Amino acid sequence: MSKVFVNIGLSLDGYMTPEAMTLENWDKPERWGAKWGALMGWLVRLQYFRENLGMGPGGETGPVNDMVKKTVERIGANIMGKQMFALGERMWPENAPFHTPVYVLTHEKREPWVRPGGTTFYFVNEGPERALELARKSAGNRDVRIAGGANVIQQYLNMGVVEELEIALAPVLFGGGRRLFENLSESAPQFRIDKAFDGPAATHLRYVRQ
Amino acid sequence: MSKVFVNIGLSLDGYMTPEAMTLENWDKPERWGAKWGALMGWLVRLQYFRENLGMGPGGETGPVNDMVKKTVERIGANIMGKQMFALGERMWPENAPFHTPVYVLTHEKREPWVRPGGTTFYFVNEGPERALELARKSAGNRDVRIAGGANVIQQYLNMGVVEELEIALAPVLFGGGRRLFENLSESAPQFRIDKAFDGPAATHLRYVRQ
Repeated sequence: MSKVFVNIGLSLDGYMTPEAMTLENWDKPERWGAKWGALMGWLVRLQYFRENLGMGPGGETGPVNDMVKKTVERIGANIMGKQMFALGERMWPENAPFHTPVYVLTHEKREPWVRPGGTTFYFVNEGPERALELARKSAGNRDVRIAGGANVIQQYLNMGVVEELEIALAPVLFGGGRRLFENLSESAPQFRIDKAFDGPAATHLRYVRQ
Repeated sequence: MSKVFVNIGLSLDGYMTPEAMTLENWDKPERWGAKWGALMGWLVRLQYFRENLGMGPGGETGPVNDMVKKTVERIGANIMGKQMFALGERMWPENAPFHTPVYVLTHEKREPWVRPGGTTFYFVNEGPERALELARKSAGNRDVRIAGGANVIQQYLNMGVVEELEIALAPVLFGGGRRLFENLSESAPQFRIDKAFDGPAATHLRYVRQ
């Protein structure tokens, strides 16, 4: 069966997005772009990421590039929250960067939104369990990634279904924003270290559910 | 001149101590001991730590043990907050585990408290700058460690004086407690990765001020 995993970038102080990176400020990157860049710069410089986003040739190769390629290729479906989707809807290129079905948790009723390149957004109104059921079905032999944002990951952690937690810990301090680890209940599983991989711009931590 | 550094254990969700580990509960380890053990177990099992605390022979040797020995030996003075001291006063053995002058930030007026084995606690009423001044003087060629708790480390981060940040990131989720990274101002310095070292029970992250 598909594994359920999280793979995200995290600031050293535990934030997934800087304070000012909101829907209202999406077109004011001067308020959040430097912090976002410090979090995600390593990713954007990779050859595979550039190729995958249609950003053209070039980019860094090596073990981090290989790791990201492997991660993207194992994903059969994504799940995300409505805030992440709303921000992405404005920021992603037309050829959205998922190339899989994406299940968006929302109260909004909306027809599936098909993008060129294999990404289709499905809007799920029946909650996280139903989204996971749909994602598992469409992922087939591949895995389900809980893409974010923070509160969606928290919901799935509290449901106990997250089997692998992959964090690219960047040395930047945001000082505020949306924290990954809060609102966790005692039912959240515990993890063990699988491996840590020391990149120059982020430390790649991989945990497996105990 | 002495370097100023932080060296602590941190839960994966960013806490230095579990919620229930307070002065009132110090004699009820059933409320916090399992989480504290998951955070610090790797340290207590080391040969050097056991020797240093008079816990007798035996214990793990190897690169993590060597690293801890090197860290302890570079410390010429410690600085801590009154809450950490108050808890430690009840929990440390008579031969307190610092073997250096320890400057305790407090409003309480109290004579220096000399312990066997080279630890003397000095109670500083004039704030963190003064404590650092005193600690630097007594550290000589060795370094000053900001021992904790979280709010004291935050004060020194915000003062911009912390040059090195060493974190043993344990895979445990506390779900609540005292967070290391909060209340940070924009004046807090940024760090770069110096190295990451993958131990079996904690990931040892070392950052240097940019």
